This record gives sequence, C-alpha cells and structure tokens, in this order.
Amino acid sequence: MAAGDLIEIPARRGKAVRLKKGQRIKMINTHGTQVVDTWAFNADDLHEFMSMEHTRPHIGKFIPAVGDIMYTNKRRPILTFVEDSSPGIHDTIIAACDRYRYKFLGVEGYHDNCTDNLFAGMKELGLTPPEVPSPLNMWMNIPVKPDHSLSFEPTVSKPGDYVVLRAEMDVVMAFSACPQDILPINGVGLKPVEAHFQVLG
Amino acid sequence: MAAGDLIEIPARRGKAVRLKKGQRIKMINTHGTQVVDTWAFNADDLHEFMSMEHTRPHIGKFIPAVGDIMYTNKRRPILTFVEDSSPGIHDTIIAACDRYRYKFLGVEGYHDNCTDNLFAGMKELGLTPPEVPSPLNMWMNIPVKPDHSLSFEPTVSKPGDYVVLRAEMDVVMAFSACPQDILPINGVGLKPVEAHFQVLG
Repeated sequence: MAAGDLIEIPARRGKAVRLKKGQRIKMINTHGTQVVDTWAFNADDLHEFMSMEHTRPHIGKFIPAVGDIMYTNKRRPILTFVEDSSPGIHDTIIAACDRYRYKFLGVEGYHDNCTDNLFAGMKELGLTPPEVPSPLNMWMNIPVKPDHSLSFEPTVSKPGDYVVLRAEMDVVMAFSACPQDILPINGVGLKPVEAHFQVLG
Repeated sequence: MAAGDLIEIPARRGKAVRLKKGQRIKMINTHGTQVVDTWAFNADDLHEFMSMEHTRPHIGKFIPAVGDIMYTNKRRPILTFVEDSSPGIHDTIIAACDRYRYKFLGVEGYHDNCTDNLFAGMKELGLTPPEVPSPLNMWMNIPVKPDHSLSFEPTVSKPGDYVVLRAEMDVVMAFSACPQDILPINGVGLKPVEAHFQVLG
C-alpha cells in the first residue's frame, strides 16, 4: 500500500500497517456505526505498546480528545490525536472481544473476534504481538455513570467521520472492525461493517 | 506463613502469597490511608491473570463491589469480592506506578514503585510475572466525571478497613503498598505506610 491509498478494514476482520514517526493516519468510520479496535506497537520492540491504563493518568481523562497524547507502557508518547470530526465518544476501558466473550454471550461455536483479528492483521506483516493490550476502541460508546455502572450503547458517529492520529515513534498499528453482533455497539441493526484508513504521509 | 497469620505488606514494598481455590484472603488497610495495588495470577499458568479490562464488561461497572466476580484475561472467575468494610472506593483504570511515572513527576534517580514491587513480591515465591497486568488498586480514589476527566484523591477508607476476597481457582496474589508520595492518593500527608493481609483458610 502507498501513502494516500484508501485501505479497507474488512467487516469483522483485522488489518495492520506500519507508520514512520511523524506520519499521520486517517481512520474513517465509513458507515458511522462501526467500532474499530485500535492498537499501536513500537516497531522496534513490540513489547512496548500503546497502553490505555498508562495513558489515562497522563491525560487526566478516560477518553482522549484532540491534542491528547497516547502513551506506551513505558510512558513514552506513541500517538497524538490530531483531528476528530466525530463527537469524540471513544472507549478505553473495555477489553477486545475474544472467543470467550462470545461463549458468555451465548454463541455456540466460533465467532469472529477482535483479539484473533489483532493476531491475523499483524500476521499479514509477519509479526506476532507478544501480548494483547487493552485497545483504544475508536467510536465505541460506553457511558459510565456516577454509580460506577457502564453500558454498551450504539456509536454516536456519522458516516464518514474520521480521526487523524500522528505517530510519535515508528509504529505498527493494528485495527479490527469489531464483529460484535450480539450487543448493539455497532449500531442497533447489529450489523458489523467495513471501515477504512489512509496513511497521510 | 500459616493460615490466619497476619502478614505485613511493608511500606513501599511488595509481597505475594499463594491461595488454593476456595480460600479467602482479608486485605487490611491498617492505617486507612494506604492504596494497595493487587494482582492475581492463575497458579498453574501465569499467563492467565485477573484483568481489569475483561472484568469491567462482565460486572457492568468500573469499580467492583461485594458479590462481584473478577475475571481473568480468559474470562474465567478468579476472585470474588466477599466483604468490604470500607466505602467501596477502589480503582481499576490506572496503571501500576513505575520508574517512568516518577520521572514524569519530577523525581530524580530511583523511586520505589508498584511495578518493581510486583516483580519483587513474586520473586520471593520464585516466580516471574510474564507481563504487568493493570492492577486492582484497592482503596485508590480516582473520581471520574461526566466530562471524562479524572483526578487523584486521597483514600476514603478508615484505619482497619478490610476487603475479603475468595479465590475461584488456585492463585498467586501479589500486592504492593503503593509508594506514591508525590500525589496525595495515600493521604494528604504523602506518607506511604504498611498494610496487612490474612489468609482465612
């Protein structure tokens, strides 16, 4: 893929891409309803990666916004939120779905899931993540309430909404167009769809 | 140590203990002001561990309370909250402090930290954690607000407050009496102190 190409994250699938320090990536919520689980790893050492639990104390928030820097598990800047055309509702507190999650939700047999998609996306680049960091769930809408409860709600983004991130080191980014079709996080239609990204150079 | 012994988690240090499935542990906030970072690993496979990001969706909350089950990264029950004499303010969203954290906070040279304490505590049992899971920060008071902001506040527990947890599998638990003395999470006196635990059999 060349800089500027519109790359598809196929519905229910994973995809990964390398970015050089300083490059920007535009993540596009093509249909507006899709959650995209997002990871970033230090390209030179996959044991260092974007960490939600390390980022939250540094930005003093549990949802990043334009201008905020995402930190690694070594507390180094890895990505900066440069633009966000959506209402800014994303999630940092929920794990990637996995085979165990769907079993809990009553699914018999295999169900596509973001954890396997992370591995599949990275594998296309010849890489294996050494662990599964808690993802930045772009556009995922998990309201938290004063009584400490949380709920799983549809996205509030619209078709074509995008987020632009800048790489603060050489990174491997991985994405999963979340295949969740039991809970309504990908819209009340329960229909996971494709999303896109574009490396802006 | 025998069941029933009162074990000290020394101020600024780590400690670990093995529990058999069904055993209960009483964690005691001896002085009321101390945050205790808490981890639990499957004793038969340290790659499976208590996971904050996997627990939150299952309990539908970002702070567990009595009756709630903590889940592993394979979404299996690992600990149950059986009793809590404190006001129930704990934290699941902030990473363990580490050498990098104190550098950010302006500390020159080495500072005790919960991440190193995890390794030191486990090492006393001849074990090495394969990664550093996001901890259950017992008694840590991190209010989150509707604008998505969070802050670092003193504990609201009183001397002698305790939490009782039951092991749902054979586990290795690790604790760190958090050495944070720059932010007031361990009380406005900025004085990290010891805490205790007791295996109840």
